[in-house]
Amino acid sequence: MITNDGAVGVGLAGFGTVGSGVWNTLARNGGLITERAGSAVKFEIHQIVVRDPDKPRAASVPTELFTTDWQSMVEHPLVEIVVELIGGTEEAFELVAASLGAGKPVVTGNKALLAERGEEVFALARRHQTPVYFEAAVAGGIPIIKAARESFIGNQIDLISGIINGTSNYILMRMTEAGLDYPTALKEAKELGYAEADETLDVNGWDAAHKAMLLGAIVHGFLIDPDEVYVRGIEYVRPLDICFAKDLGYVVKLLCIVRQHEDGSIEIRTQPSFIPKTNILASVNDVFNAVAIRGDGFGDALFYGRGAGQDPTASSVVSDLVDAGRSLREAPKGGNQGFLPYRKKGTLKPIDETETAYYVRFPVTDRPGVVADIASLLAKAGIGISGTHSSIVPDEPDAAFVDMVFLLHTCPFGTLKSALKAIEDLDCVTERPVVFRIETL
Amino acid sequence: MITNDGAVGVGLAGFGTVGSGVWNTLARNGGLITERAGSAVKFEIHQIVVRDPDKPRAASVPTELFTTDWQSMVEHPLVEIVVELIGGTEEAFELVAASLGAGKPVVTGNKALLAERGEEVFALARRHQTPVYFEAAVAGGIPIIKAARESFIGNQIDLISGIINGTSNYILMRMTEAGLDYPTALKEAKELGYAEADETLDVNGWDAAHKAMLLGAIVHGFLIDPDEVYVRGIEYVRPLDICFAKDLGYVVKLLCIVRQHEDGSIEIRTQPSFIPKTNILASVNDVFNAVAIRGDGFGDALFYGRGAGQDPTASSVVSDLVDAGRSLREAPKGGNQGFLPYRKKGTLKPIDETETAYYVRFPVTDRPGVVADIASLLAKAGIGISGTHSSIVPDEPDAAFVDMVFLLHTCPFGTLKSALKAIEDLDCVTERPVVFRIETL
Repeated sequence: MITNDGAVGVGLAGFGTVGSGVWNTLARNGGLITERAGSAVKFEIHQIVVRDPDKPRAASVPTELFTTDWQSMVEHPLVEIVVELIGGTEEAFELVAASLGAGKPVVTGNKALLAERGEEVFALARRHQTPVYFEAAVAGGIPIIKAARESFIGNQIDLISGIINGTSNYILMRMTEAGLDYPTALKEAKELGYAEADETLDVNGWDAAHKAMLLGAIVHGFLIDPDEVYVRGIEYVRPLDICFAKDLGYVVKLLCIVRQHEDGSIEIRTQPSFIPKTNILASVNDVFNAVAIRGDGFGDALFYGRGAGQDPTASSVVSDLVDAGRSLREAPKGGNQGFLPYRKKGTLKPIDETETAYYVRFPVTDRPGVVADIASLLAKAGIGISGTHSSIVPDEPDAAFVDMVFLLHTCPFGTLKSALKAIEDLDCVTERPVVFRIETL
Repeated sequence: MITNDGAVGVGLAGFGTVGSGVWNTLARNGGLITERAGSAVKFEIHQIVVRDPDKPRAASVPTELFTTDWQSMVEHPLVEIVVELIGGTEEAFELVAASLGAGKPVVTGNKALLAERGEEVFALARRHQTPVYFEAAVAGGIPIIKAARESFIGNQIDLISGIINGTSNYILMRMTEAGLDYPTALKEAKELGYAEADETLDVNGWDAAHKAMLLGAIVHGFLIDPDEVYVRGIEYVRPLDICFAKDLGYVVKLLCIVRQHEDGSIEIRTQPSFIPKTNILASVNDVFNAVAIRGDGFGDALFYGRGAGQDPTASSVVSDLVDAGRSLREAPKGGNQGFLPYRKKGTLKPIDETETAYYVRFPVTDRPGVVADIASLLAKAGIGISGTHSSIVPDEPDAAFVDMVFLLHTCPFGTLKSALKAIEDLDCVTERPVVFRIETL
């Protein structure tokens, strides 16, 4: 029996950056929230699960709220909503499953959990008629989950294109504007706190890919098996590629694409891409994120803002808390707002069938015949060439080792792959070619 | 007694562009909506109020749905939600009041009604515990109302800056990129269907001002008396101003500002403004709209998309319909989501106390002493000058009538106004000076 005296009882699991941001936001703006949302929506945090309750903390939290035992928090009679911010996909899953099993709605920012084990999580949500809110899982302070789920509920969504990893975006921006190479730009990002000590998931594309999978799931109704998703990171981007892009009128961005095809299949992929510098996504700099959505009806829309950090992410958690609290107090019958509907078995468009134009850089030994050899193999594969360039510099026009760049017309990725396989076998090609998609958006 | 067999019954008032867009969207995507929102959310339009039921229409609507009598539509036992798309502030008010009186939630796109008679409308909503939804009233296909109301519910909002009139934006863009004068650009906008036959409300700033007032009301909790709002349109913008702006690194946009001051007062104004060309708002072209929001927590966010037109606006109406339908079926206790809370009596910052830098153009008879005369009066008022320019062209360096431009440091608008009054009395000043705000954003 709830005896919260009106306030919605909250249990917090995890009290790092985002968790303490949530505490601070409720402390600072709790009155404002109640003023705006009505007196039914007032929150009280009853327990906070941490690893070390004795660790000194910036937020002024009564120490009796801390516990190391998430099970007791979930079972706490005054906790009505569970906020999961511990990360990872094992313990976090157990915690979320236990909360849903107890009929307590979950608010989470855990994109890895939802992208990798979403099928289980949402099945539990549905079985227990208890919603999962996850605005904080995608693009921090940008309310893209709500927009995709509620505002565009009456629209077919043809294309989502997003820049949704701030770390990668910062690194690519610094490579572009200051000519830094990748290791230097990464080092700088770490020094500024824009990259984690372990940067792997940010720069290898998987953080962005997880978010793209969640966006795709919301608008198309199913999650893709992560093993089948095409993901490339920014580690192999070279200053040379950035320069070529600039000369050609493009900007290099780590881009996520979620596209619905006419046959109903969904294309989902994440990779460094050339986008026209006139496209509004090309202006997204620093650690900012942006998601462009195209659909029937509204046409084109874009959402831009801070994609990470304590306060932006806490801000999304708090807006989810309000939705969850409102639903608890005002919609006792529930509703499926917080379930991810598995409406149908979806079909992933095989990556080999997806089509764009391409920029391909071949590291070669420069001897007469190189261009001819590569061009004939491309011709044999039926791939058109729209331009070739080399990395030759003015004062060394006869360098022996160069990078040859080919701009290729639109063709299926599978066709390109086979052609590249043949080209790699040429004796003049010294390393694996590097491929960037050229997106028209 | 509702016998709608599950479907939520809808009555539509107005069947012009947006109304038929709503019909078509429900016809095309009704299945998708139910798939996404759950089987409880299915819509059936029972009556459509039109002036002339016999007029041929593009949408294939059974003729028996048409009626000329809005009262009977509102009272129709199967109509649970009323969609108001007739425009105006008289009959539309009566219709909305009758619907709320009957406990039937209202979905409307009528920004003039809500901005001018919002106090009455929302008081009725509150009294009858029946919500009003108005996503379609601000920035067509951009879900900015939901974002401001729900996603940023936990945030203090310091600044909203918006380009929210597509017609003005198109005209200013054409003046900028093609050097057109105002009448020619307006004519072009009309030919393309981007301006109404009567363009008044679009170009005089009031359409944008109404939207800004609604955004301000959502985040700050009160509506401003329209008589007190400062609004200027684009009719007096000259190609000369656009050229000066460009040379100085700015772009001219019709900009709405809603700013919270530390004393708690709210500054709301709409006028053509210089914004730095590097600001993302400067890239908003054509008939697109954009709203930038700055607040504690999330920092800066921007929403961009189509601000008007049949399908974008219909898309917002449909998303409101889903929210309204869901609330009817799932939250019988209501909740105040659709009421505009009049939490407090708000204070409008007097326009004379608002501060920016300025661009002022003085049409003058050019004689020695003009700059000195103007500069001394500005000095007397304590206003700093950061630069002066004239409209002199290379092949006529001694023209008699010119425009003198002064760039002025930040000062209260009231200070500027008094100084300009004194300057207008100079015999060399031939017409009223033209003022643009220079916004730093």
